[in-house]
Amino acid sequence: MATNEAKKKPNAKGSKKKEVKKETGLGLSFKKDENFGEWYSQVVVSAEMIEYYDISGCYIIRPWAWKIWKLMKEFFEKEIDKMEIEDCSFPLFVSPAALQRETDHIEGFAPEVAWVTKSGESDLEIPIAIRPTSETVMYPYFPKWIRGHRDLPLKLNQWNNVVRWEFSNPTPFIRSREFHWQEGHTAFASKEEADVEVLAILELYRRIYEEYLAIPVVKGKKSEMEKFAGGLYTTSVEAFIPNTGRGIQGATSHCLGQNFANMFDIKFEDEKGNKRMVWQNSWGYSTRTIGVMVMVHGDDKGLVVPPKVASSQVVVVPVPYKDADTQAILDACSDAVKTLTEAGLRAKADLRDNYSPGWKYSHWEMKGVPLRIEIGPKDLANNQVRAVRRDNFKKVDIPMASLAEQVKDMLDDIQKSLFDSAKEKRDACIEKVATWDQFIEALGKKKMILAPWCDEEEVEKDVKTRTKGEMGAAKTLCSPLDQPDIPSGTLCFASGKPAKKWSYWGRSY
Amino acid sequence: MATNEAKKKPNAKGSKKKEVKKETGLGLSFKKDENFGEWYSQVVVSAEMIEYYDISGCYIIRPWAWKIWKLMKEFFEKEIDKMEIEDCSFPLFVSPAALQRETDHIEGFAPEVAWVTKSGESDLEIPIAIRPTSETVMYPYFPKWIRGHRDLPLKLNQWNNVVRWEFSNPTPFIRSREFHWQEGHTAFASKEEADVEVLAILELYRRIYEEYLAIPVVKGKKSEMEKFAGGLYTTSVEAFIPNTGRGIQGATSHCLGQNFANMFDIKFEDEKGNKRMVWQNSWGYSTRTIGVMVMVHGDDKGLVVPPKVASSQVVVVPVPYKDADTQAILDACSDAVKTLTEAGLRAKADLRDNYSPGWKYSHWEMKGVPLRIEIGPKDLANNQVRAVRRDNFKKVDIPMASLAEQVKDMLDDIQKSLFDSAKEKRDACIEKVATWDQFIEALGKKKMILAPWCDEEEVEKDVKTRTKGEMGAAKTLCSPLDQPDIPSGTLCFASGKPAKKWSYWGRSY
Repeated sequence: MATNEAKKKPNAKGSKKKEVKKETGLGLSFKKDENFGEWYSQVVVSAEMIEYYDISGCYIIRPWAWKIWKLMKEFFEKEIDKMEIEDCSFPLFVSPAALQRETDHIEGFAPEVAWVTKSGESDLEIPIAIRPTSETVMYPYFPKWIRGHRDLPLKLNQWNNVVRWEFSNPTPFIRSREFHWQEGHTAFASKEEADVEVLAILELYRRIYEEYLAIPVVKGKKSEMEKFAGGLYTTSVEAFIPNTGRGIQGATSHCLGQNFANMFDIKFEDEKGNKRMVWQNSWGYSTRTIGVMVMVHGDDKGLVVPPKVASSQVVVVPVPYKDADTQAILDACSDAVKTLTEAGLRAKADLRDNYSPGWKYSHWEMKGVPLRIEIGPKDLANNQVRAVRRDNFKKVDIPMASLAEQVKDMLDDIQKSLFDSAKEKRDACIEKVATWDQFIEALGKKKMILAPWCDEEEVEKDVKTRTKGEMGAAKTLCSPLDQPDIPSGTLCFASGKPAKKWSYWGRSY
Repeated sequence: MATNEAKKKPNAKGSKKKEVKKETGLGLSFKKDENFGEWYSQVVVSAEMIEYYDISGCYIIRPWAWKIWKLMKEFFEKEIDKMEIEDCSFPLFVSPAALQRETDHIEGFAPEVAWVTKSGESDLEIPIAIRPTSETVMYPYFPKWIRGHRDLPLKLNQWNNVVRWEFSNPTPFIRSREFHWQEGHTAFASKEEADVEVLAILELYRRIYEEYLAIPVVKGKKSEMEKFAGGLYTTSVEAFIPNTGRGIQGATSHCLGQNFANMFDIKFEDEKGNKRMVWQNSWGYSTRTIGVMVMVHGDDKGLVVPPKVASSQVVVVPVPYKDADTQAILDACSDAVKTLTEAGLRAKADLRDNYSPGWKYSHWEMKGVPLRIEIGPKDLANNQVRAVRRDNFKKVDIPMASLAEQVKDMLDDIQKSLFDSAKEKRDACIEKVATWDQFIEALGKKKMILAPWCDEEEVEKDVKTRTKGEMGAAKTLCSPLDQPDIPSGTLCFASGKPAKKWSYWGRSY
């Protein structure tokens, strides 16, 4: 395919550019700013992250995306290991009796539960649910393992798949019927210990988003209406997608209080011989993280992967010319990969002889590799390589002698630039409002709105009702943990009652 | 609990021993040689590997067992990474249309398929199956990714859960309705390449069993009757459980030939522009590995875990006496753990003050920790520790100065001894027979029987019929890849026809 386009420049203008697109089939036919939804669907497929599946809401996660998940997991595993949280594996299935034990919880999940009712040709005696989350799978067994205060804390985690048969618009990574996550479930003797862990885990989630995915998030607390069904309070990290003007819940760390402990009778004997209920947390982040990354960093050329989570951080492309020593160029490419790999970087060469350099540039840009290295006859002669950044397409010539160090620095800089630029865009979307009129105006401008709120559920419901429409209603995203001052006399933007806290509002995923 | 038994020796005899058992609740009430089934069920629970679950055939895998799985996975991941096999994730669900595409395959799995028919209160339009394995989940998408010969080989792997709703006696790890495994799925341009990979993977499975789990296995080929439904041929590693006289399939590496390629239309254009069908493999090993380990190495004191897969390789227990400097002993224990951990070993100290040393000995013996280190006042005075092996209870005094090296050596020796001893026992169960009478006699003695066979399916069926009984029928386990000579004129033990190959026969799991 397209073997004769070796000399075509990837940055050729006008008709030539279209030609390449047509010949290579590599271009996106939708623009991020013009049709975000179609752009997203196309980019996850074209970048070879996702293949659509013949069951709606289920997706094939291809190696290019799964590796991102694995790299995040590596970080998170190491961190929770330090916290002495242990991995385990509970069943996929849950009996109706266990699932329905906690009323608020089951009300929250019942409509989305998938039920197995048959095996082979036979009906099961009782239908069996597929876990939508594992509180009711796990907690019936906690009393077996927790007797005395020395059995606490109990700290478990599992990496698994859960199923929520949602009927709202399925979107790869963002909202799928089966998804992958880790779910931590811990039990403590005191609320204080539980509280500390909730925030320690939330901080890890912030780090995944900000340090790995280069996405700014707000750490906050969910409103009573938006908290986890059956829990005491929910904290979350909230990201924002400027293109759609929607907030997106990035990950949640819940304090469950003693509600589940009461339902599942999880007691321990304290130092004085008194029976007490445990305090519990649960927390999770999912493959949704990958979708947020695509939405925040992707552009009209495709995916942009931050170096820390990139399957390949560097791709080396030979740029041979007719009269050049092709073998020497190929060897230089392999050498460059060896140098980079030995320096601990994830690098590979694309030495395929049936694709032109131009095709390869487009291909790896689509896949979002952070840095491309080109080696042509001139580079070879000058004992250097040309490096091209995926984030801003800036080109730099690097002497072979300092390849590893300079590439490392460039990758660090790309990681930082991606975050800075995402933060700048996100910050530009944040608008502080004081009144309902300002709120409606800001919502119309797709903002992430910070507003003083009376913290009353009725008012929250009212805001939802009053903002209903084609785009979906506005709701609370979170109350930031880092609260700005509320001068005395500040009123709730929606109810006019005295404001109790600042809260982020907006449309959301 | 039992705080006053600090001075009781773990090896106290007679009534004292019973007393400890009663007080600690740590003993097994069944013996491996007397009631193997009950012993197994008890040991997996008492060693804190498994908790039974309220849905039959589903089990909770606790951290102590899950860590074994993670350690094996670490090895296997590294090896398949070298082979350029990439991880990915396909859906849990499969549509009836895809599932039923390959006739032999679906016949093999249909009776065990679990069907989701409802979500919330609503019936699904069409029922959806839960994958029993992923051939029919994955292969419909291979034609999208394989066009030309340069797209080959395609090498994918996933770590996931599958469901087979079996009704025969469920057993933790060994036969469960949901189980965890890796499943590799690869496609090649030629049969030769596929054949090579089948054996390369089989060798990795052998290494998992022999080098990690210290369990001898036979590499072999399955008979036509026992091969994977829809495949061309199946290779496996076969272990043997002397106590029950049953073979157990350890892991399988299948060459699928071109059968699935035909059904799912997986073609590629070769160098000459001809369309050809791909050759495919699939291969997997599961959490069953852990069950085989329990069965082979466990004893009447509980689990015995080979050092290479042990969550904790060494447990350090302080043995304080009334008039001794307790704090100095505890410090020495912590120092020992530090030294061992820094040397790359997995070690921990059990410094709990509410359990006696005797209780701790029994507890960690039950959990199968390969090496126990005791530190008492005398050890402290002599600047040494006492090391006690789990496999043979031999005791050695080790100077503090050479702790790490000597412990490393001892762990290596334990790993080797476990394998040697398991091999000796397994080898003692192998019996070569020539005639039907010898075969029946060996079967009665619970042997793993090597017999010359005509390789005819009718004869295999006939053997099954003729050996039916309470204990289950005998069947082929595998034909060893390493075939002994067959002198000309050798006859099949069952049919009297000329023998074509040596094959292992026996009862199996």
